[in-house]
Amino acid sequence: MAKQLAGLSPKHFLWTVEDRVAQVRLNRPERKNPLTFESYAELRDTFRDLVYADDVDAVVFLPNGGNFCSGGDVHEIIGPLVDMDMKQLLAFTRMTGDLVKAMLNCGKPIITAVDGVAVGAGAIIAMASDIRLATPEAKTGFLFTRVGLAGCDMGACAMLPRIIGQGRAAELLYTGRTMSAEEGDRWGFYNRLIDADSLEAEALELARRIVAGPTFAHGITKTQLNQEWSMGLDQAIEAEAQAQAICMQTRDFERAYRAFVAKEKPVFEGD
Amino acid sequence: MAKQLAGLSPKHFLWTVEDRVAQVRLNRPERKNPLTFESYAELRDTFRDLVYADDVDAVVFLPNGGNFCSGGDVHEIIGPLVDMDMKQLLAFTRMTGDLVKAMLNCGKPIITAVDGVAVGAGAIIAMASDIRLATPEAKTGFLFTRVGLAGCDMGACAMLPRIIGQGRAAELLYTGRTMSAEEGDRWGFYNRLIDADSLEAEALELARRIVAGPTFAHGITKTQLNQEWSMGLDQAIEAEAQAQAICMQTRDFERAYRAFVAKEKPVFEGD
Amino acid sequence: MAKQLAGLSPKHFLWTVEDRVAQVRLNRPERKNPLTFESYAELRDTFRDLVYADDVDAVVFLPNGGNFCSGGDVHEIIGPLVDMDMKQLLAFTRMTGDLVKAMLNCGKPIITAVDGVAVGAGAIIAMASDIRLATPEAKTGFLFTRVGLAGCDMGACAMLPRIIGQGRAAELLYTGRTMSAEEGDRWGFYNRLIDADSLEAEALELARRIVAGPTFAHGITKTQLNQEWSMGLDQAIEAEAQAQAICMQTRDFERAYRAFVAKEKPVFEGD
Repeated sequence: MAKQLAGLSPKHFLWTVEDRVAQVRLNRPERKNPLTFESYAELRDTFRDLVYADDVDAVVFLPNGGNFCSGGDVHEIIGPLVDMDMKQLLAFTRMTGDLVKAMLNCGKPIITAVDGVAVGAGAIIAMASDIRLATPEAKTGFLFTRVGLAGCDMGACAMLPRIIGQGRAAELLYTGRTMSAEEGDRWGFYNRLIDADSLEAEALELARRIVAGPTFAHGITKTQLNQEWSMGLDQAIEAEAQAQAICMQTRDFERAYRAFVAKEKPVFEGD
Repeated sequence: MAKQLAGLSPKHFLWTVEDRVAQVRLNRPERKNPLTFESYAELRDTFRDLVYADDVDAVVFLPNGGNFCSGGDVHEIIGPLVDMDMKQLLAFTRMTGDLVKAMLNCGKPIITAVDGVAVGAGAIIAMASDIRLATPEAKTGFLFTRVGLAGCDMGACAMLPRIIGQGRAAELLYTGRTMSAEEGDRWGFYNRLIDADSLEAEALELARRIVAGPTFAHGITKTQLNQEWSMGLDQAIEAEAQAQAICMQTRDFERAYRAFVAKEKPVFEGD
Repeated sequence: MAKQLAGLSPKHFLWTVEDRVAQVRLNRPERKNPLTFESYAELRDTFRDLVYADDVDAVVFLPNGGNFCSGGDVHEIIGPLVDMDMKQLLAFTRMTGDLVKAMLNCGKPIITAVDGVAVGAGAIIAMASDIRLATPEAKTGFLFTRVGLAGCDMGACAMLPRIIGQGRAAELLYTGRTMSAEEGDRWGFYNRLIDADSLEAEALELARRIVAGPTFAHGITKTQLNQEWSMGLDQAIEAEAQAQAICMQTRDFERAYRAFVAKEKPVFEGD
C-alpha cells in the first residue's frame, strides 16, 4: 500500500523532497506559471498518491520566478474549451475539481507561499491549501467572471466564504478584482506576509516544524477539518471524540507524555 | 416566462430601472423608512419577479433622507402583532422570511448602500444582500432582543455568523447593540465605507461594472453561494464542476476568449 | 422539572449565583487551574442541569489567580490516558465532548473572561462560550498537537474556523502555537480586551445587561445559533420564522411594546 514519492519525476511541474517535505513549483516562469491540461492531471495524480506515501509528511507549494501561478493557460486551455461539447467540458471541470479534492483528501498539511501573481486556478490552489503565506507583492485574483464564467470554480463559493467571510468573498467573486496582499493578510486569507527574499525559507521552516510534530495526528486534523465542514455541532463533537481517541492510542501521544515527565522535548515519529 | 420590471410601479417603495440596474428606496424618510406589512409583501413579490425579469441584471438598495431603514414600524407592525394568534404570527414571520428567501433566490446581485439607521429588518435587508457599502455614519442594529424577541429573525442566526464570525454575531444578537460603521468595515459586514455624498454614485458605479460582466454567470455565482451553504466539500466541488460547465457553453465565455486573442476588452451580453 | 442551582455546592470548582448570574471559577490557581476527571464531569453535569434551572439566566466563566485554565492535568489526566484501552479512551473523549455539548445546549448565554493562560481544554471552554472577553495578557493555545494529538478536540475543527476563519484556525491547530490577545481581538475570537483589574466587573456587568433582557428569547437565540449550524439557508429561514413566532407570544414581547408606547424602558421578566 505504501508508496515512495521522493523519487517522483513529474514532467509538468518541479518536485523535490527533502526531510519529508515535498516542494512543488510550476515551471513556466516566463508566462507566470500557467496550468495546462497536463499539469492539472499530473498534480491531481500526485496529490492522490500522497495519501499512501510514507516518505512525505507535508507539501510546500512555491512560486517560481517571482510569480505563483497565472491560472489556466489562455491558449492551451481556454481556447480548446470554447470548442468542447458538454461531455468534454464536464470532464474538464471535474478534473480541476479533482485536483482540489485530492489536495483536501491527501492527508498531509499543504503550505502555499505566494509571490506575485496567483490568479484563477492559481488562487484556487492557494485557497485549497491549509496554511498560506505571501509577499507584500502578492496579487490574488478569483477572476473567473472576467473570462465570462461564474465564481463557482473548483470549490470557491464553498471555501472562500469560510476563509475571509461571506461578504468579502461575494465581492471578489462578482467583480473578479484583485485582492491585495494587505487585504489578504487582514482578512485571514494569508496567515502572514513575508518579504520575498525570506518567503521560501520561512515556508520551509514552517513545514519542518509541522513535520517535526505528530504527523499521524496531523492527518487526522486535516481529515476532521474537511469532514466536519457541514456536520451539525453535536455530530462534529462526537466525530472528534472518536478521532481523538484514535490518536490517544498512538505512540506519539505516549512519547509526548514521557518527554514531559522527563522534562525533555518530545521526539515524534508519526505512529 | 420573461417579465419586464422597468415599468413597475410599486405603491409602497420607490423603484426605478436605469441601464439594467434597479434602484430601490423605502420612502418614509420622515420616520427613517420603516417597513409595513404592505412594503414587506410588495418587496417580496418584486424580488420574486426578478427571477424572470430580463430587463434587470442587478439591484441597488439605497437610503432615503439620510437613513436606510428603521425596521418594522412600531405602530403599524409591532402593535398588531401583540394581538395576533399563533397562526397569524407564523404567517407574518414567514412573510418576512420570504422576503429574504426572495432576495437570495432572485438570481441577480444585490448591492446595498447604508447611510444612517439600518436596524431590525433594515439590518437584515443589508445582511441578505450580496455586497454592502456604508457611510461612516451608518448605525446597524440587530436589535430584536430590545423588543423582547430572539436574535433569530429572518435568517440572522445563520447568515450573520458567516459574514462577521460566530463570536461577533453572538454578541450583537444577545445585546442588540449597534454595530458602528468602523466595526462593520473591519469585520467584513461592509465591503467598504464611502462618504455620504459619494455613496449612491459609487454603489451605482459598482452595479454598472457588475452588470457589464457576464450576467448569466453572475446568476450562477449567486445560486452556488446559496446552494453550497451547507454542502459537504466534495459535494460542493462536484456541484461547481457542473455549474461551471454550464457557463462554459455560454457565448459570453467565447466572447471573452475571442476578445483576449484580439487584445480587446470583451463585451458581454448575458447569454 | 424546575431546578434551583443557586445553592449548588460543587466540589471541584467554585460556583456562586448572584442576581441570576452564575459565576464559575476553576480552583487550583497554583497550577493555573487544570481540569481533572472530576471537574470535567461535575462541570458537564452542572451545565446539563442549567437547562432546567429557573434561578440562573446566564453564566460567567472567570479566571482565578491570574489564569483561566491550563487544560487537562498532565499527571491526573494525561498519565492515566496513556494506559487506557480504546473503550476507556472513547469514554473520556466523549465526556469532554459532553461538556461542550452541555455548554452549547444549556439554553443560557455563557460569557467567558480570560486572563493569563487558556490552553487545551481551557481554550475549548472559551471557544464553546457565546461571548469572550480577555485581558491583553491572555495566552490562548489549542496546543493538542504539542502533546501528540490532533487538533480535533471537543469540537475545535468545527467551531474554531467559524469564529476566526478557516485559514487562521488551521494554522493554530497544526502548529499548536499561542494566539496572542491582540490576535484574538483582531480575529474575532475575543469580543474585546479589558485590563485585568476591570475584567471581572465588566464581564459581570455584561451578564447583568443580558439577564435584564428577554431571557426566554435569549434561550431561543442560543438554540438557533446551534440548530442552524449546518442547515440550508431556506431551511434556516423557516426555522427562524417558527422560533420567532414562539417569541412573539411571550409577555416580554408585549411588555416591550407597551413600554415603547408609554415612552418607558421595558422591564423584561423572562416569560
